[in-house]
Amino acid sequence: MVGASTGTKRVVLSGIQPTGVPHLGNYLGAMTNWVRLERTSSPQDELLYTVVGWHALTLPQDPKALMESRIDMLATLLAIGLDPKRSVIFHQDQVRGHTELAWILSCLTPVGWLRRMTTWKSRLATSRNANDESEVDESLLNAGLLTYPVLQAADILLYKATHVPVGDDQTQHLQLTRDIADHFNRTFKQPHQKHPYFPLPTQVDTPTKRILSLKDPSSKMSKSAPDIKSRILLTDTAPQIQTKLRSAVTDSIHGITFDPVNRPGISNLLTILSACSEEPIEQVVERCRDYGHAQLKTEVADAVEEMVREPREKFERLRKERGYLEQVAKEGAEKAGEKAEKTMNEVRKLIGLA
Amino acid sequence: MVGASTGTKRVVLSGIQPTGVPHLGNYLGAMTNWVRLERTSSPQDELLYTVVGWHALTLPQDPKALMESRIDMLATLLAIGLDPKRSVIFHQDQVRGHTELAWILSCLTPVGWLRRMTTWKSRLATSRNANDESEVDESLLNAGLLTYPVLQAADILLYKATHVPVGDDQTQHLQLTRDIADHFNRTFKQPHQKHPYFPLPTQVDTPTKRILSLKDPSSKMSKSAPDIKSRILLTDTAPQIQTKLRSAVTDSIHGITFDPVNRPGISNLLTILSACSEEPIEQVVERCRDYGHAQLKTEVADAVEEMVREPREKFERLRKERGYLEQVAKEGAEKAGEKAEKTMNEVRKLIGLA
Repeated sequence: MVGASTGTKRVVLSGIQPTGVPHLGNYLGAMTNWVRLERTSSPQDELLYTVVGWHALTLPQDPKALMESRIDMLATLLAIGLDPKRSVIFHQDQVRGHTELAWILSCLTPVGWLRRMTTWKSRLATSRNANDESEVDESLLNAGLLTYPVLQAADILLYKATHVPVGDDQTQHLQLTRDIADHFNRTFKQPHQKHPYFPLPTQVDTPTKRILSLKDPSSKMSKSAPDIKSRILLTDTAPQIQTKLRSAVTDSIHGITFDPVNRPGISNLLTILSACSEEPIEQVVERCRDYGHAQLKTEVADAVEEMVREPREKFERLRKERGYLEQVAKEGAEKAGEKAEKTMNEVRKLIGLA
Repeated sequence: MVGASTGTKRVVLSGIQPTGVPHLGNYLGAMTNWVRLERTSSPQDELLYTVVGWHALTLPQDPKALMESRIDMLATLLAIGLDPKRSVIFHQDQVRGHTELAWILSCLTPVGWLRRMTTWKSRLATSRNANDESEVDESLLNAGLLTYPVLQAADILLYKATHVPVGDDQTQHLQLTRDIADHFNRTFKQPHQKHPYFPLPTQVDTPTKRILSLKDPSSKMSKSAPDIKSRILLTDTAPQIQTKLRSAVTDSIHGITFDPVNRPGISNLLTILSACSEEPIEQVVERCRDYGHAQLKTEVADAVEEMVREPREKFERLRKERGYLEQVAKEGAEKAGEKAEKTMNEVRKLIGLA
């Protein structure tokens, strides 16, 4: 846990894509952890949260929607309780240095390292609906999809981040960041240098809840699923939350038990309830075991509403305050930019472009 | 020819790698063309000359040597006669936007387009001393080597360049730039837009002389050949030029004829003489046909000395004037930066990151 360690100063960096209005899965995933991190970190720790606009371009985007999503994501970070006085909250694409460092690092990263990334392999596989990456070739996929893990490495190393709270799906990318940093450190080691230039960042395991679709509990809650009832958005009103939960797919088994394999729908509801009420799952199960399905759904809806009411109201207010959001973004970019410039000046001297 | 056309304003961009002190091959290649371009272009034409530091990173570099080379190349551009009041002369790596636009374009460039570049293929082949790219795999080569043609495209499109004077070896890269620009233009076309956003740049064929090694006239004059007598540097003194030319490899055939296939050494000397004296090759051959080899070498040495004396002296003076060079670089970066920022602001609006 990030909050638990003491002593040396840590630099924590997290990035989130501008995906627009977040759903409950996003919210109970990374986001609540970020707020917890802000509360539990030592005052000397540096916290950086960035909306990674450059990364959004690796997939086709509607420009208008992206523009809105980018603003909405900043509003979201503030709405869930992150404090721009405590943390540096900024748009990646507003800080010079991210793509410059990415270029430098891409000249130190063998193509083979990138082709081994499972994200690239799975993209290859899905690109032609194939079952196996050996069935497809990569020629149609864009170069950004291949190289974005290098941009991620740059995002982290630009701030010399020491701790990166990410989910398990990002473990391989963080290892790549460490490999690239190590390669840079060895290549550009100075004769009397004591410490490697870039710290090798550590993964911070975050207890993220995997929230499933309300309509198809075999898959994750997703913003792109066609049925809007499959997800609860941060902007949903209390009646909408009620309606969506009432229509959540469960099962025909009597009573309430937590059994993700055989009862994914019911178990998903219990996970949501536990996360919203910050009550251990066992306690939730114990308390609800004699409930009917409808009763459970009502309680979950109430708990969700209870949790999202404040951030929702704040979000709805903030997303209209464009001037304020721009100001927060500007100040964040300035603070991040100062740190980034310091690193880039040092890096340029090390590599000979100064 | 760039100088010949009239009417609409042209934006001409050329880039050169920071390779340090140029040799006669570099000088009589791109560089003299740049000066000619400055003299013959219409006053309304914009001319941009950039030292492409980011590109140098695609191959391993000694940081100290790179740092010197970067400064020397700027001094060279001024020494050969380019006028920073007429042209925008700048370091690519000092202008924000090059790597940012490269990132954006890399998200529109299929990996297959890049793997088809002959530069990549030949790099693959040489990476393992193989004769054929099918014998090697690309996993060991760095990602920058694969994607630098996208950075080249960004260099060009960032200034909406319409004309790019490059040698034949760059035709494929310029075509890629056109393909990427066209892809961008289609992807982000606005409803009532009349013209495509990026102009598709045209290759300007430049009459470059292919100057060969003085020691092995079967290969080009090269800065990396082990025998320093194989090349004449811009910093060489008159006696050094004499010595190098005296030891130039020719043949044992009597008399002087221009026959690049059977008499590459003699023909190379005639090419150099023609280029230095700006005298048509036929006239040079006619004039020298009864010369002995030694006499020809003396005349070539004199012509080279005559041509390089002024730039050499200017170069030796300028490379010590670090303050002046920094000032030129700063002003160049500011002028280029203004244009780059304008493009990036427009591009960001088009793609939705604004």
